[in-house]
Amino acid sequence: MLAEIITIGDEILIGQIVDTNSAWMAKQLNLIGMKVKQITSVSDDADHIIEALQEAEKRADVILITGGLGPTKDDITKVTLAKYFNMGFRRDEETLQHVTEIFERFNRPMIDLNRKQADVPDRCTVIKNKNGTAPCMWFEEHGKIFVSMPGVPFEMMYLMDDEIIPRIKAAFKLPVIYHKTILTSNIGESFLAVQIEEIEDALPAHIKLAYLPRLGQVRLRLSTSGTDEALLQKEVEVYAQQIIAKVKPYVVAEEDITLEKAILNFMEERKLTLSTAESCTGGYIAHLITQHPGCSSVYEGGAVTYSYELKMSVLGVQQETLAKYGAVSEETVREMALGAIKHFKTDYSVAVSGIAGPDGGLPGKPVGTVWIAVAHAKGVVSKVFSFGNKRAQNIERSASAALSMILNELQQHED
Amino acid sequence: MLAEIITIGDEILIGQIVDTNSAWMAKQLNLIGMKVKQITSVSDDADHIIEALQEAEKRADVILITGGLGPTKDDITKVTLAKYFNMGFRRDEETLQHVTEIFERFNRPMIDLNRKQADVPDRCTVIKNKNGTAPCMWFEEHGKIFVSMPGVPFEMMYLMDDEIIPRIKAAFKLPVIYHKTILTSNIGESFLAVQIEEIEDALPAHIKLAYLPRLGQVRLRLSTSGTDEALLQKEVEVYAQQIIAKVKPYVVAEEDITLEKAILNFMEERKLTLSTAESCTGGYIAHLITQHPGCSSVYEGGAVTYSYELKMSVLGVQQETLAKYGAVSEETVREMALGAIKHFKTDYSVAVSGIAGPDGGLPGKPVGTVWIAVAHAKGVVSKVFSFGNKRAQNIERSASAALSMILNELQQHED
Repeated sequence: MLAEIITIGDEILIGQIVDTNSAWMAKQLNLIGMKVKQITSVSDDADHIIEALQEAEKRADVILITGGLGPTKDDITKVTLAKYFNMGFRRDEETLQHVTEIFERFNRPMIDLNRKQADVPDRCTVIKNKNGTAPCMWFEEHGKIFVSMPGVPFEMMYLMDDEIIPRIKAAFKLPVIYHKTILTSNIGESFLAVQIEEIEDALPAHIKLAYLPRLGQVRLRLSTSGTDEALLQKEVEVYAQQIIAKVKPYVVAEEDITLEKAILNFMEERKLTLSTAESCTGGYIAHLITQHPGCSSVYEGGAVTYSYELKMSVLGVQQETLAKYGAVSEETVREMALGAIKHFKTDYSVAVSGIAGPDGGLPGKPVGTVWIAVAHAKGVVSKVFSFGNKRAQNIERSASAALSMILNELQQHED
Repeated sequence: MLAEIITIGDEILIGQIVDTNSAWMAKQLNLIGMKVKQITSVSDDADHIIEALQEAEKRADVILITGGLGPTKDDITKVTLAKYFNMGFRRDEETLQHVTEIFERFNRPMIDLNRKQADVPDRCTVIKNKNGTAPCMWFEEHGKIFVSMPGVPFEMMYLMDDEIIPRIKAAFKLPVIYHKTILTSNIGESFLAVQIEEIEDALPAHIKLAYLPRLGQVRLRLSTSGTDEALLQKEVEVYAQQIIAKVKPYVVAEEDITLEKAILNFMEERKLTLSTAESCTGGYIAHLITQHPGCSSVYEGGAVTYSYELKMSVLGVQQETLAKYGAVSEETVREMALGAIKHFKTDYSVAVSGIAGPDGGLPGKPVGTVWIAVAHAKGVVSKVFSFGNKRAQNIERSASAALSMILNELQQHED
């Protein structure tokens, strides 16, 4: 069984927003054994939407559509679907009542545009969107299932979790899709490939190996599908363990987790605590860590010290150090890391200070120069990096390098 | 002239990664007057890639392809393109030298897989990828332009900026695409629509209005294209100013910027400073702010106080307050905000404390309960929110609500 995702909205095609919905939906579909064949983003244009629907229904059994369901004139998904399926409209009383309640709750007057949200194509099944006024619509036409959902991520997510996923599970007898991911660090993908070449060549045709490199890490993913989950898992695990044994020194995690989650797991097992002292990464490392539920057993907190003053008052960096070496220096970043250990009373700390750009380069310190230090009971290590002049990437690459350094220190100094 | 973007990789279709490349590429293409007709994500499957190429070349003049260029066996974009265009392979000596240099620089042995990266389809033009080993390939076939780039974002971005965008500009006489965005806050899209209905109905056919709602904000975007940029801008500006005059109290910015950027601009003009004190948002607000170049003239820094201890030691929250009311309480969040003002010496501060979830709910404080306070010289305001049980959304919605509160206070208390 195959699904396709169609996201509708000019804002995606002009790059005003990143389509994060599709990845989230694809993940949920995979979990229930439904493969996603294609993801297509099209503009708010009726002909183009119809073309995308035609192509999708040739390839897939379920077509999930997000976007274009607002009350305003630029949103045309609903009328386009009605046209595509040759349907008239009916007013859905339950939706009307739900929209009315929302407006009453916020004490706002309801207008015709809002009432029109309750008008739906004739033969669709309406699914209540408890977080918004645009109803979700389920069509069974042309021998396929089409689901139209709002593009607002949290409205779509609740609908998928509570309504769509259970209904798809009930509608099909789905296979099990099994993925096993091994996270490696400090080795390039081609070197990994050579080391595990024999294992890769011996893989049966129904098990696929993928290499996913990103910022100094490579994810190895073994994928297969079938009917018996236990059997699939057992079979894949045999090859996974062969790979792990072969490249052991580089393996960070035997599951599909991020580097910071691997750190949290490692530290939680050993009852170690962590703090952060960030300048150019501006809270991004703290954010990566605190995305993970349960991080509070390891992560105590940290500081974002953008100014000299906060570097001194919060972290205890010496004024002379800043004056003599500047904020972006080995001396400062080491004092930041040691200050975090001292003031935040944690076992480990990480500190980052750099020039994120696009401007602000100094003689001998071009934009992209980043100092990172990791401190712990046995000492402090520091390293300088050069990440180019793109701000967003500097922040991301600095964070990734900082996390790698923490993990290295943990692996060297803790059992 | 139309472009299409094809992103290749199973990792996108199983939701293991979010495709951020496409939005970035679409934005760059728009800036030079090239509209993106469709974005398509397909798996590492030769037949499916070929189908996507066939469909794309029917609709577009330029087809930009990312992904699937790694040295390992799962990456098949290069051989599939050669097959599609019916080409053999040649070894590109410049690429080989470049790859060799990279390996020498990192002092790593080069293996056959790496050398193979220099093998390219016969009739393509090779464009040097200075940040990686996979070359960029430019094809002029079937009367269209096809460009294959690596999927690693920073490799793709440098290639687009330095090579692809200039070459596309040189290859076509492109129109100007002009967008004008107005950011509004605290008003729903249907109410906006009613207020500006007459203006919307009077828009000429070549100017399109879109409503982009997100987390309590609505962006209004006027779009058009033509040849004379000054003229387009002048024409759109007339309608934009009519809209702005009509919904003035809700207008946050007259350009396509984020809420935090609007805050930074507002505060910078008035020489005001800002600090953050975050618990459940875990550095995310700091991260949003510090994404913006030049933020350091307003933003001094802040604290991520996950633990009780840091709330006390860094922000000066009273132990009794925490003991009596708990960390997620009006009393605590107000002390956090006031503590930030005092310890970080800024004009404004924002503090957030909540239960991000998915677990950790307390009697009377379900998961998703979030207290936010904004402090400044004239006082402190606080508000409670209820954001449901999805951690990532709680963090995002808390940050958005916090930013809205800062802006409200600024608008009320500063001229």
